[in-house]
Amino acid sequence: MGAMSMEHAVWNPQAECMDREALEQLQLERLQMTLNLAARNVDFYAKRFRDLALLPEDIRQLSDLTKIPFTTRDDLVRAYPYGLFAVPLRSVVQLRFAAASAEPIVVGYTRQDIRMWTELMCRAMTSAGVGRTDVIQVAFHYSQFPGAFTFNQGAEALGAMFTPAATVSASLQIRMMVDFRSTILASTPSFALNMIPALNVAGRKNDLHLRIGLFGPEGLTPKVRDLLEQGLGLKAYALYGVAEMIEPALAAECSQQRGLHLAEDHFLVEIVDPDTGSPKVLGEEGEVVVTSLSTQGYPLIRLRTGDVSRLQPGPCPCGRTLARLSPVLRRCDDALTVRGVRFYPQSLERIVREVTPDIEDVRVVVHTMHGLGDQVELLVAVPQGGSLPGTVLETMRSRVRRALGLGLRLRQVPAQRLPLAGLTYKTTILEKESPSTGLPF
Amino acid sequence: MGAMSMEHAVWNPQAECMDREALEQLQLERLQMTLNLAARNVDFYAKRFRDLALLPEDIRQLSDLTKIPFTTRDDLVRAYPYGLFAVPLRSVVQLRFAAASAEPIVVGYTRQDIRMWTELMCRAMTSAGVGRTDVIQVAFHYSQFPGAFTFNQGAEALGAMFTPAATVSASLQIRMMVDFRSTILASTPSFALNMIPALNVAGRKNDLHLRIGLFGPEGLTPKVRDLLEQGLGLKAYALYGVAEMIEPALAAECSQQRGLHLAEDHFLVEIVDPDTGSPKVLGEEGEVVVTSLSTQGYPLIRLRTGDVSRLQPGPCPCGRTLARLSPVLRRCDDALTVRGVRFYPQSLERIVREVTPDIEDVRVVVHTMHGLGDQVELLVAVPQGGSLPGTVLETMRSRVRRALGLGLRLRQVPAQRLPLAGLTYKTTILEKESPSTGLPF
Repeated sequence: MGAMSMEHAVWNPQAECMDREALEQLQLERLQMTLNLAARNVDFYAKRFRDLALLPEDIRQLSDLTKIPFTTRDDLVRAYPYGLFAVPLRSVVQLRFAAASAEPIVVGYTRQDIRMWTELMCRAMTSAGVGRTDVIQVAFHYSQFPGAFTFNQGAEALGAMFTPAATVSASLQIRMMVDFRSTILASTPSFALNMIPALNVAGRKNDLHLRIGLFGPEGLTPKVRDLLEQGLGLKAYALYGVAEMIEPALAAECSQQRGLHLAEDHFLVEIVDPDTGSPKVLGEEGEVVVTSLSTQGYPLIRLRTGDVSRLQPGPCPCGRTLARLSPVLRRCDDALTVRGVRFYPQSLERIVREVTPDIEDVRVVVHTMHGLGDQVELLVAVPQGGSLPGTVLETMRSRVRRALGLGLRLRQVPAQRLPLAGLTYKTTILEKESPSTGLPF
Repeated sequence: MGAMSMEHAVWNPQAECMDREALEQLQLERLQMTLNLAARNVDFYAKRFRDLALLPEDIRQLSDLTKIPFTTRDDLVRAYPYGLFAVPLRSVVQLRFAAASAEPIVVGYTRQDIRMWTELMCRAMTSAGVGRTDVIQVAFHYSQFPGAFTFNQGAEALGAMFTPAATVSASLQIRMMVDFRSTILASTPSFALNMIPALNVAGRKNDLHLRIGLFGPEGLTPKVRDLLEQGLGLKAYALYGVAEMIEPALAAECSQQRGLHLAEDHFLVEIVDPDTGSPKVLGEEGEVVVTSLSTQGYPLIRLRTGDVSRLQPGPCPCGRTLARLSPVLRRCDDALTVRGVRFYPQSLERIVREVTPDIEDVRVVVHTMHGLGDQVELLVAVPQGGSLPGTVLETMRSRVRRALGLGLRLRQVPAQRLPLAGLTYKTTILEKESPSTGLPF
């Protein structure tokens, strides 16, 4: 044991500490099964194989995978609702809907898929040091982030106590933490950050029993990690998920916190150049591309996630052999994240243009705090001399709130006073100095 | 079979169609177990028995139960958080928090409690005609109504497909219904009613596949039932739950729809005079009082629910022997329900008074539609010549939204122009003619 004795437990040592050679053999077998499943049951993939005059069995080693084109978010949108399902609907037990976008995506899970994701959540919780005597406060918005349900399932499977606190106010969250003696907080980093001022005002930091924070799906910067650990008196652990799979525990930190161990027995991860699509050298930064290896309901082959990260080479002192992904801190597309909700500026524009045609142009301003999106403001340019009535503005705010779960600041400005757009689509990012004053979440 | 062949299936015939004499024997045995559990493990109940010089074994028949005093909502509030738990916390696997009140209540469930409630949800779904080929759209606010999680569990146990749609906007709900071919809608009556105008605007009523609506926790008036059935093209079924137990399926309608069959093997229900507390004659209207018979974590003895209803005598043609409760359509206390969220006007007043002391008095105005609370307005009287700044009003709105999940209209009026309070605490009910214009839900 030696150095290992300080480590947290491993939920599934057979899978998480597998010999690399055996792991790669398992990956290859599962990849071939997945390709066969997709080619047989999913028209979209069947056509791809036909167009390439390729058979699933032509993929003889993991590196052959690059012969198959990427799957993009647009492909998923076009296949909505069921075009990418690989099993008949009667085998699907749960549908989850990614609502936070004007172009929805739906993911279907079979019973086995649910079991697999629950297992990955148990691994993630265990590797962060969560055990069966813990009290887990699950503080996610279940509508906006259906991956939250998997925290409930993981807690149940682990035998820990949990409370689905959802997104009740910071003061109620704090009251629950104190009264329930919650030891684990699971939430977005933004939501947790917003609890800290309320905690200080209430003067209850010393009444907390928090040990561990499980944070996702936004990435944790070192600064935010530090603020959360200081502010809430816990050790922060990052989880990584892929929005298009909805689930949160594709990769998770261990006690070493030098990257997030990927569930490589269930997912194959590549890092590619976002522009050319060609593979990056191990350790180089690039776009994360994911292929599912055991998923039945909604298998995806080479999904471009838009997340930018890198794989860390070398073994981990924790004993896990699973490769590690660096924290995902930026995107290679236009996606924005505000208070844990990811959306595209294009979607926001579409929502407000549906309310009225009297809009010349828009700019999205994201006010960040410690680099995390905290508020979203929309500058709306109307034709010269025009002005939108208050009821139209109210409808816009209300539609955005219903679609994204975000309060929206709206400002009308003359077209010539719109700021130039930033690097991403019609978007400006503004870092603020002070905490927000309680805009509705 | 004969007449029975038109009936929906029965999930658990042994329990639901039990001989009445055997049922009452089972109730008595379980009642004695519950009283012993409570007297041994819950200080609150132990003290009651001591004060009365009563032993659990003195309750020799069901009618002896009236020797024990009622448990009130105030008792639950005073016992917060764990004062009424009958098992050690390590046996509790899930905590649910009733947040929609200034005085919170927390309910703890053991693994067996979760199984029991899941079983009752399966019974309720089956008695409404839901089967394993159905697609169940669960459209509740998981934060405000944690009983929503039990719909997920019930669907899983039933083997049906479900989608946790939560409270995304009406247009997205409709899109999901159409695209997922949802056959079952589970929601509050208010939320479902608000989908109808959106459905008509979208002109998609003929694209729906809905067969059945499961509605609760608000009661269904004949008018609302009719509107839902016409507007959504489904058959509406009512569920009954007790807010203090958080769970939704204490009683549910069968195909006969002549009352809601109570899960009498797990709960003992009395109807009492709200003023005197004395038992009502079978069939007379009164306050519903509930005693749990098999609950481990949070057993309650003679809980006064505040709900007004009556028991219907006589056997039901569906074959179930379980007694039927008439739909609960009113309260005997001040509780209000707006868009499915129950709250007390006192809580609302407390929330706004915490924001500023500069309030002379308040009135709560509930705007109803078809008798269901649709919007809540608060009239705030400030000292003569005074006026609250916009930021204070915004903070009030935001606090109410965070605490209750409801948008609030606020109006400042001179104290002498406040309306007289109605029968309930500082409250006026106003029936509206036309649908609301999309206030944030």
